[in-house]
Formats: sequence, C-alpha cells, structure tokens
Amino acid sequence: MNQTTESRETVQVSVDVVLLTLIEQQLHAVLLKRAAAPFAGVWALPGGYIHADEDADAKASAARVLRTKVGIEGAYLEQLATFSGPARDPRGWSVAIAYCALLPVQNLPPDRADISVVPVSALPQLPFDHRDIVDAALARVRSKSLYSSLPVHLCGETFTLPQLQQVYENILGEPLNKVSFRRKMDEMDWLEAVAGAMQSGAAHRPAQLYCVKPAFRQELALSPRGL
Amino acid sequence: MNQTTESRETVQVSVDVVLLTLIEQQLHAVLLKRAAAPFAGVWALPGGYIHADEDADAKASAARVLRTKVGIEGAYLEQLATFSGPARDPRGWSVAIAYCALLPVQNLPPDRADISVVPVSALPQLPFDHRDIVDAALARVRSKSLYSSLPVHLCGETFTLPQLQQVYENILGEPLNKVSFRRKMDEMDWLEAVAGAMQSGAAHRPAQLYCVKPAFRQELALSPRGL
Repeated sequence: MNQTTESRETVQVSVDVVLLTLIEQQLHAVLLKRAAAPFAGVWALPGGYIHADEDADAKASAARVLRTKVGIEGAYLEQLATFSGPARDPRGWSVAIAYCALLPVQNLPPDRADISVVPVSALPQLPFDHRDIVDAALARVRSKSLYSSLPVHLCGETFTLPQLQQVYENILGEPLNKVSFRRKMDEMDWLEAVAGAMQSGAAHRPAQLYCVKPAFRQELALSPRGL
Repeated sequence: MNQTTESRETVQVSVDVVLLTLIEQQLHAVLLKRAAAPFAGVWALPGGYIHADEDADAKASAARVLRTKVGIEGAYLEQLATFSGPARDPRGWSVAIAYCALLPVQNLPPDRADISVVPVSALPQLPFDHRDIVDAALARVRSKSLYSSLPVHLCGETFTLPQLQQVYENILGEPLNKVSFRRKMDEMDWLEAVAGAMQSGAAHRPAQLYCVKPAFRQELALSPRGL
C-alpha cells in the first residue's frame, strides 16, 4: 500500500514530557540539555522516539524517557495532547505525543549538569513547540486541580491537610476556604489518616498525617461539581 | 541517528474519527466499510494515514479523511486522545491520533452503501481498538456537555431554546431544569436571537430562533461551575 510507505517514510513520532514539581510554593518544570542535533546543548523538555521493540504503548515510552534520561521512576503520568505538523521539528513532518508528569520535589534526581529545574514563570526560550506543550500542561494541571485529586502527586507519601490545601492553592493561584476544602476532600473519600502518625517538628500543635487510599494512587478521585 | 531510522521504519501513524450525530434523540456514529486489508469489508471508524505532503497537522488529516472518505465538510472537530501500541493493528506498532467530530443530522451525506449511521447503543463489533476510541469519545462528549456549548454542534444553524435543551438532555441522558438551563445559557453569553425569526410549523405558539455568536462557532463557550 502506497499510503503505508508514505507514512512510514515521512512522519516521525516521539514522546515529550512536561515534568512538574513544586519548589517553595511555585511550579517548576524539569528541562534536559539536548545531547544531539537539532538544538544540541539547548534546554528542552525530556523526550525521545518510541522504541517499538520494548514500549507497550506511548505512555510506556514516556516512562522510559523519564527513567533513562532523567533518572526518575514512579511519577504520575497522563497523556496531554498530540502535537503535529511539518514545521515543529526541522527534520520534517512530526508527531509528538505529549505527557504531563507530576513528582514530589524529594523524588527529583540528584543535581546533574544536564538537568535544570526552572520555575514555570521563568522558563528560557524552548526549541520546537515545547513552549506550547508546557502551556498546555499548565492549563491542564490548573483546570483539573479544580475538580480532582491531581495535586496530591506533588506531595510526598504523607501530608497534613493544611499542606495539601497549600499545594492546591499554589497550583490554582488563589486561596481556598479551609472548611469547604475539607468538606470536598471528605466527599471525594480518597484520603486516609495514617494511624498514630502526626506531623512533628512544627511550631504549632501536631497535625494528623494523611495518605492516599490505594484505589486512588493510579486513578484520580473526582469531584464532579468542583472544589 | 539510529533512533530516527528505527522510529520511521516501525511506527505507523494514522488518524481515526468518531463522527457523531443525533437522530431521533439518540447519538449515532458514522461507520465506513473498509475498502482494503486489514479487515476489508468490515465496518470501522473513518480513518487514514497522515499525508505529510498536504496536511498542516493531524487535525487537517482528520478533516481530509471526513471530506474525502465520508464526503462532509465543516464538522466540529476536536482531538480526543492518542492510542498506541504493538497489538492494536496487525501491521505492527502503531499510533492512532483520535478525533471526535459532531455534525447536525441534516449535514450528513446522502445514503451510500459503504456508509452506515448506527446508534451508539447498537454498534457492531469494531476492528482494531475502535470500540475503545468510541467509548472515549462518548465519555468526552458527555462530560464536556456538562460545562460547555459542545452540544450545539449537533444542532442546525438556528434552533429554539427548547430544542437546544433537548439536545443537551439527549446527550446527558437526564432531564434538565428549564429555568436553570436558560440562566446558564444566559451567563455563558454565547447565543444570539435571530432578529424576527420564529420557529414555524409547530403545534404550540412560535418560539424565538437562536444562533451561535460568531466568536463561539469554532471555540466552545465554557461554564466553569457546570450546568
């Protein structure tokens, strides 16, 4: 079939990952210095080609990129959108399946010269259409935080309710009412108190520590009517 | 670069389109009888390879598939998700960028032996992972109808408010309160009365006809807190 030949010869497929974390109450993106042309030496989103011989699907490709190029495992990953066209990559018509990943700051890899963790408000100029991909990820994370448990993937394994609320507020960029926030978390029924575990070392009285119920560690909990 | 060669040789990229319309108050999907192997003669979603020499992006590929294979233009199109892996297509590791399209029933093409318009509740067995793609489209259309103007793309150019409400109700599968529906449409501010145009031929008194404000013909109007 002619069309098959045409497709295989002229369309290249990659995955790109917007890996976000929260540092000092600000969203940061993880950038990788490109090792090879095009744009060698330029900071860009972690990404790479699909390896048809080993990847079960494009999400597995994205997880492999994070593991082999950034050195992390276990980030929350969701498909964002697919970007395509003749102009986004100088090598020709291309398709990038973009993923958004969230990781608690304590799970970032140790400092490395080819990895940069940059506030999303102060990103350098990015190659390809990586700026559009970052903007789409930020819009997705902000809108989805209004009605889901997504922000918890920026928290460590255990956290207090005030800490969780602050993570939501940092993403949304606005304060939330404490009473209604706690009622919504209750309704969504995705948190469990860690028996006997209280936050220690805080100046004020110790607060209960929570973790995510097993059923919601891979799947998001949703609040259909929003926070 | 080895990876480039590997990618180009082993990953095929296509677009698949879930084209939905509303007939007798039920969502229907448009299926096309496949002309070529694999699955020749089987009903499937309209789809095809990207034509790198003519398509501006994958959305343009989807529009071209609808134009050349189904014979329609001007359907509302949005990217749904990208499906990928080694098993979804017998020809090998493949990527399908899936789109959802909505079309008023009066804009469907004339009857053709290789086109079938089937209620989504009575779809035949579909090849590849087309059933998963349809299910994702239905979930998207239903959830998005709760907070946007999406359903209007199933209406003709002009419609009454009772007709629009019925389209929402058909998609959502539940009755809506008339007063709050009208208040939400007002708040979203995306409709305009067609001057002097009233619905004719109805048994009861004539109702005002509305159309979509130009700014919302390509972009959806959103209701952040839902209907």
